[in-house]
Amino acid sequence: MLAFGIDPGSRKTGWGAVRVEGSRLTCVDFGVIKVDDKAPLHDRLSEIFDRLSEHLGRIEPERVFLESMFHHKSAQSALVLGQARGVALLAAARTTKPVGEVSPAEVKKAVTGSGRATKEQVQEMVRMLLGLPERAPSDASDALSVAIAGASASKWKDLRAQLGVPKAAPGGRKKGWRR
Amino acid sequence: MLAFGIDPGSRKTGWGAVRVEGSRLTCVDFGVIKVDDKAPLHDRLSEIFDRLSEHLGRIEPERVFLESMFHHKSAQSALVLGQARGVALLAAARTTKPVGEVSPAEVKKAVTGSGRATKEQVQEMVRMLLGLPERAPSDASDALSVAIAGASASKWKDLRAQLGVPKAAPGGRKKGWRR
Repeated sequence: MLAFGIDPGSRKTGWGAVRVEGSRLTCVDFGVIKVDDKAPLHDRLSEIFDRLSEHLGRIEPERVFLESMFHHKSAQSALVLGQARGVALLAAARTTKPVGEVSPAEVKKAVTGSGRATKEQVQEMVRMLLGLPERAPSDASDALSVAIAGASASKWKDLRAQLGVPKAAPGGRKKGWRR
Repeated sequence: MLAFGIDPGSRKTGWGAVRVEGSRLTCVDFGVIKVDDKAPLHDRLSEIFDRLSEHLGRIEPERVFLESMFHHKSAQSALVLGQARGVALLAAARTTKPVGEVSPAEVKKAVTGSGRATKEQVQEMVRMLLGLPERAPSDASDALSVAIAGASASKWKDLRAQLGVPKAAPGGRKKGWRR
């Protein structure tokens, strides 16, 4: 199973591809598409679409995953994000048949074992699971975590056990808040 | 000048093309793209993109206009609308170079002469300006009004004068509210 995750954004769109063979996880490729803030909106969306399509065409994933969206700071930011998300979904639909969504909690749970893990914990676990020498850039790491969660939520429990990686400490989020 | 207006929506996307020759306004074509509520989101977005691209390719407008967006009922509805808007902007960017935005107030003002005209007044004025036997469906009429406003806001003042059409009564909105 070759899974491709996308973390769309109007300025930065993260993407990452992960191969799953049995309980083996390999990082295929990842990156961040940065677009010029000052370019007209339709040109920015066009660039996100083109570059995502290029990666999807090159990597030929079997499935594409995006994080499902529920909460937003504001309606305006949701509209802006929605536009980037729309062209990302379109690029996925053009090149790959199944496009799936995973919830933020599913991503946290699949990657760290806890639905309440911090962003830091998720990024560090992505690095460990994929055996990367250092953490991927934030947006790419998010996309990789979505690909991992999408490929299979249940498998990683076993994988964590094999690696001897403990569950993320519960209450980690609260600690983060206290600081 | 051949202007194409789009009123994107996740279920219904209105579109309309208007030709402007001197002070003459002609309706070229209009319609509403309805997509299946139950289809997966990426397939719906794909259909909006394909059908808009088809109309844009056939009509070959010189400019495409969308209404700019500021206010929303909720972040969730803004996200959903944003996705449809993203693929509409992409379709426009693919087929036509200049893509412009007009504000809701500019649309009302250009079509009726008053920034506070009601939705009904705008629709009726679109019908009159384009010499249609009856009002276009709501979403298509909105798209036509965006095309008219985009093509030229100032021209229609003269046009209304030529047609002997008075400005929409100021305070029309208030009256609507009283009912």
